[in-house]
Amino acid sequence: MTFTTAHMSISLDGFVAGPDQTRDDPIGRGGMRLHHWHLDQPQHEVDARWTANLLRPRGAYVMGRNMFGPIRGDWAADGEQWRGWWGDEPPYHAPVFVLTHYEHEPIEMDGGTTFHFVTGGIGDALAQARAAGGGDVDIAGGASAVRQVLAAGELDELSLDIIPVLLGRGERIFDDTTVNELELVETEHSPLATHVRYRITR
Amino acid sequence: MTFTTAHMSISLDGFVAGPDQTRDDPIGRGGMRLHHWHLDQPQHEVDARWTANLLRPRGAYVMGRNMFGPIRGDWAADGEQWRGWWGDEPPYHAPVFVLTHYEHEPIEMDGGTTFHFVTGGIGDALAQARAAGGGDVDIAGGASAVRQVLAAGELDELSLDIIPVLLGRGERIFDDTTVNELELVETEHSPLATHVRYRITR
Repeated sequence: MTFTTAHMSISLDGFVAGPDQTRDDPIGRGGMRLHHWHLDQPQHEVDARWTANLLRPRGAYVMGRNMFGPIRGDWAADGEQWRGWWGDEPPYHAPVFVLTHYEHEPIEMDGGTTFHFVTGGIGDALAQARAAGGGDVDIAGGASAVRQVLAAGELDELSLDIIPVLLGRGERIFDDTTVNELELVETEHSPLATHVRYRITR
Repeated sequence: MTFTTAHMSISLDGFVAGPDQTRDDPIGRGGMRLHHWHLDQPQHEVDARWTANLLRPRGAYVMGRNMFGPIRGDWAADGEQWRGWWGDEPPYHAPVFVLTHYEHEPIEMDGGTTFHFVTGGIGDALAQARAAGGGDVDIAGGASAVRQVLAAGELDELSLDIIPVLLGRGERIFDDTTVNELELVETEHSPLATHVRYRITR
């Protein structure tokens, strides 16, 4: 029994990141506007509940290479090992399987997070994460990782924070998706986001 | 003082009509799945409320040519005048301004609906509808008409019924949109749809 989820903030026109992503602006132009609901303080009570849900303990994670970091190859620059965006203690507290084309030793962080590097593609990453996490896996992002899992028909639950903003361009999660049966499980809203949770029948 | 609205049913991946639209299937492949919430009987109480809102009396309407009918030119085939999809008494009960490239005399229907044909583009259609409707105008659809009004920055309120289905391909309403400030006014949901209403600041 496995359970695979993803939770993404998405603009009303369907983008989870803005255009023109760079090393200094990894979320793309306007992309930060998708994240005020969980970053701004104080939070609306509804948004706090969905943030807590996003941060609840999980068995393991799968993460795309763009979400792990802007560096390719050995994840090192200027002799320094890249260890992700999150400082010494990332918020995952579990094994995180990073999709990449380059072999790399695992990187153990404080607080229980270990980054593992998987070169066998999304199926391999999912299998390793499910084995490590007792079947309980969250796709941490970004857009491409979620898109691949959706396209593979391997997602059980999708939570979206629909933000009342139009980005015009950027990265979508639904291109090439073969899934078309979803069941609305829950929805709540604050002034900043309409939160929806869907169960996917596969 | 004018107030211009649109109300569209949209798939979770952003399509208001399916792909491969034809004369026999004007809403495209899978497109009917966007409309069960207001067509299926009995309706969920929430869906009934949003249907009533959709059908409330309005001053005037603007409609794209694809929504009026599949026929071009003089809107006639086999010697028969095309009078829309809605039978003798369309549900508008007000002047409806149809975007077209071809001049045509107005067509007066039962119940107060008159179809007027406007060749001057979206700005002309909006001006005529606002004059006829005391400023109160709804964009009846389809995708292209709503897209043009959004792109022109002329929409005050957008209601969407977000349907838990992924169509994969089809017609979008947000391409080329310049608007990016929306305010969530209201949201409600049934098992079939998450209804959201946004006010647009212009």
